[in-house]
Amino acid sequence: MDPHRALKYSRTRRATFVAELKDFLRFPSVSSQAERAGDLKKCANWLAHQLRGVGLNQVRIVPTRGNPIVYASWLRAPGRPTLIIYGHYDVLPGEPLCEWRTPPFTPTLRGENLHARGASDDKGQLFPHIKAIESYLKTVRALPVNVKCIFEGEEEIGSPHLTSFIARNKRALRADAAVISDTRMLAPDRPAISYAQRGGLRAELEVTGPPHELHSGGFGGAVLNPVQALCEMIARLHDAHGRVAVPGFYDDVREWSEKERDFMARSGPADDEILRDAKVEHGWGESGFSLYERTTIRPALTLNGIAGGHRGPRGKGIIPAKAVAKLSFRLVPDQDPQKIAQLFRDHIARITPAAVRCSVRTFSPIEPALVDRNHPAIRAAAFAYKKGFGALPVFIRSGGSIPVVNTFQKVLGIPAVLMGFGLPDDHIHGPNEKLNLPNFQRAIATSIWYLAAAAKLRGSESPARKMEWKAHEL
Amino acid sequence: MDPHRALKYSRTRRATFVAELKDFLRFPSVSSQAERAGDLKKCANWLAHQLRGVGLNQVRIVPTRGNPIVYASWLRAPGRPTLIIYGHYDVLPGEPLCEWRTPPFTPTLRGENLHARGASDDKGQLFPHIKAIESYLKTVRALPVNVKCIFEGEEEIGSPHLTSFIARNKRALRADAAVISDTRMLAPDRPAISYAQRGGLRAELEVTGPPHELHSGGFGGAVLNPVQALCEMIARLHDAHGRVAVPGFYDDVREWSEKERDFMARSGPADDEILRDAKVEHGWGESGFSLYERTTIRPALTLNGIAGGHRGPRGKGIIPAKAVAKLSFRLVPDQDPQKIAQLFRDHIARITPAAVRCSVRTFSPIEPALVDRNHPAIRAAAFAYKKGFGALPVFIRSGGSIPVVNTFQKVLGIPAVLMGFGLPDDHIHGPNEKLNLPNFQRAIATSIWYLAAAAKLRGSESPARKMEWKAHEL
Repeated sequence: MDPHRALKYSRTRRATFVAELKDFLRFPSVSSQAERAGDLKKCANWLAHQLRGVGLNQVRIVPTRGNPIVYASWLRAPGRPTLIIYGHYDVLPGEPLCEWRTPPFTPTLRGENLHARGASDDKGQLFPHIKAIESYLKTVRALPVNVKCIFEGEEEIGSPHLTSFIARNKRALRADAAVISDTRMLAPDRPAISYAQRGGLRAELEVTGPPHELHSGGFGGAVLNPVQALCEMIARLHDAHGRVAVPGFYDDVREWSEKERDFMARSGPADDEILRDAKVEHGWGESGFSLYERTTIRPALTLNGIAGGHRGPRGKGIIPAKAVAKLSFRLVPDQDPQKIAQLFRDHIARITPAAVRCSVRTFSPIEPALVDRNHPAIRAAAFAYKKGFGALPVFIRSGGSIPVVNTFQKVLGIPAVLMGFGLPDDHIHGPNEKLNLPNFQRAIATSIWYLAAAAKLRGSESPARKMEWKAHEL
Repeated sequence: MDPHRALKYSRTRRATFVAELKDFLRFPSVSSQAERAGDLKKCANWLAHQLRGVGLNQVRIVPTRGNPIVYASWLRAPGRPTLIIYGHYDVLPGEPLCEWRTPPFTPTLRGENLHARGASDDKGQLFPHIKAIESYLKTVRALPVNVKCIFEGEEEIGSPHLTSFIARNKRALRADAAVISDTRMLAPDRPAISYAQRGGLRAELEVTGPPHELHSGGFGGAVLNPVQALCEMIARLHDAHGRVAVPGFYDDVREWSEKERDFMARSGPADDEILRDAKVEHGWGESGFSLYERTTIRPALTLNGIAGGHRGPRGKGIIPAKAVAKLSFRLVPDQDPQKIAQLFRDHIARITPAAVRCSVRTFSPIEPALVDRNHPAIRAAAFAYKKGFGALPVFIRSGGSIPVVNTFQKVLGIPAVLMGFGLPDDHIHGPNEKLNLPNFQRAIATSIWYLAAAAKLRGSESPARKMEWKAHEL
């Protein structure tokens, strides 16, 4: 199916597409805040309405015990391959609000960038696929492949209800591959396909001392301070060489061949690129590994937040009653989140001073994932990028965690193609998150090309070969 | 002047006195919250009205660059001694509000206790003196001594404008002694006079890393985390033996004689009493010293609060941009707060990792203070306690800091009599602060007796001797 009419349509509709995306971004669909449940529902309704509008069938809002999953399909190409398109319409909180130049849920255009929470993660990355589908259905009235869309509302809280949805609907969700756009490119002219994600595990430590705050004059020097105890425990989570100091933590970490590490060094970002993206001067972490390796093939333990005692202005002479830290592990093959949780609990039990108590809560376990770089669905994606962005993608590992990649592999037996459209300076998860609009337009074109290329997934010739796509060094 | 008519008056007015105190406690006069400035002003007006009502003269609301000082006097006893009565009408914040059984600024009677912020620190301790004055002026129409009342509104933020007020009015404030009720008794039947307070210094540490939050997937393991860095720095503020690890910190700490330490062991609270008051099982701190010594003749460094990164529900996969800790030193003779501030800054500079920045702010320096236990004004207080509470006081050191004690000694050359009426379980600075009402009534009687006893301060015989008060072991 010739994509050119669809491409032309998508170019003429630019302004409308951006206006629609702004509507999508206005929903404060923050999955980690219970009081936002209503906003997630409204956002799901809007999305379902949008999917119906572009011409998809079987549009359903599937309730879960959490936020609903929006499902839609177009299955009128019997005999052709079937593609799952996955994305998430939930977002992280906008806090700290004071650091946003414009409010997170008031999408604002500054230059070529559209600023809003979710602009890049992930509303602005799933939307190009919807607009690609629209571009076909509104012109040639058909898609090159069968499509099943799954848009969930709980990715940012670890997708607690997605796996059971997929497992329950295993037959209905049969497909040849899944495409997920929730990762980033290296630069506007350097598209990237992520073939590995780190796993994860979240934890919360709560140290309690006296049953209520004490006067620091009366008791300072005689009662162990929970904030101090928590800090001293946190200081024992890393050694002086930037390695995680939980005994046994590295036991199952896979060692990679020189060949793979050479490939990574050639294809991945250099140390100075990573530092520039982070806007910091100095790197940190495990010696013997590049910063790219430290964030992909090496695990990490990150403090996400800490709170205890007086947080207001000036001082308050107290010994706090408790202190809490939130942290997250990023895990790599072949670490098992459940085993890491146990090692962590054991370590915390060992290092908790007798004069305080510490409770540990672990949640959101995610296994690390790897996708075969040579799978035809991945090669088709490389072809589409070349068409959409004018450049072949590099194959990179991602340091983040996308729980569904594992689910697609394990439950449905299909590869997940991580076709990212984000840019390194999109500030995802931070204040002033943005989407670059020229990138958005190219992402739509790329998705149009991908739907075309995916039509040949099961044929004897891959579309890539047919179109004389020269294999990128894999 | 026979105090019996005043004593009788005070007994018949119990209910009125408590109702008035409740009005006083209703003002949320929180000096550390800028938005409460209006409430402090209203509270000062109420207090001035109250002082006029009891019959004091020269009642003035003295503006400062911060909260006003309420001044009142009665000087119609020429040739008699003059007593300064000092107290503070400002209070600490009520937060964390969720831990209060009833709101902090809604005074609530439960059993014999009146619960409210400020019930014990210090509104409920300064009020007995006002009611003692009223009891004289409404009956015998005169006081046994001249009185100058100074009630400030900034004690909880380090009394930034009090010293200059006293220095400016040095002549007008001439007096023989000052009485301050802002400390505690050991038990309801064990009154106590505090003859030593620790000094203090507050500090704030702010560690900054990346200019904004980073995604912990993308950068976890490659960028130093400000929360982690701050915790690791805090872990280096104490050594493994509970001593402050700032080099030079103990250089000027005075060593006390065996005699003084024996006296302390006999008169002060035992370890198990201190643990019971704190409601904790285990003590902590510098070995070789009792808990009482650790909180009085030994300095301490206390973490008052910490905050950084994500503090909401669940998790958020970020590397925070910054983290802040608030801490306070408690200092002892002969430590100098300014010198300690410099040692602390030097230590922080040494232990700050290169990959983050740390700014240090120190404020509210207070010098430690000592009062001669044998001064006649102190002996008169012992006598008054015996009359009011039926027991001679013990002489104890206090771990807290009352900045004005030093000011009275240095600027006016007079001793400060720390005649405390608080109880150990009053929860000052914590949630559910309370005042024990039988104690409140006895405090009024004690103040009535003290005004009588103070009349003889300059005579050849101290009132204590005259009334055959047997010296408590000093």
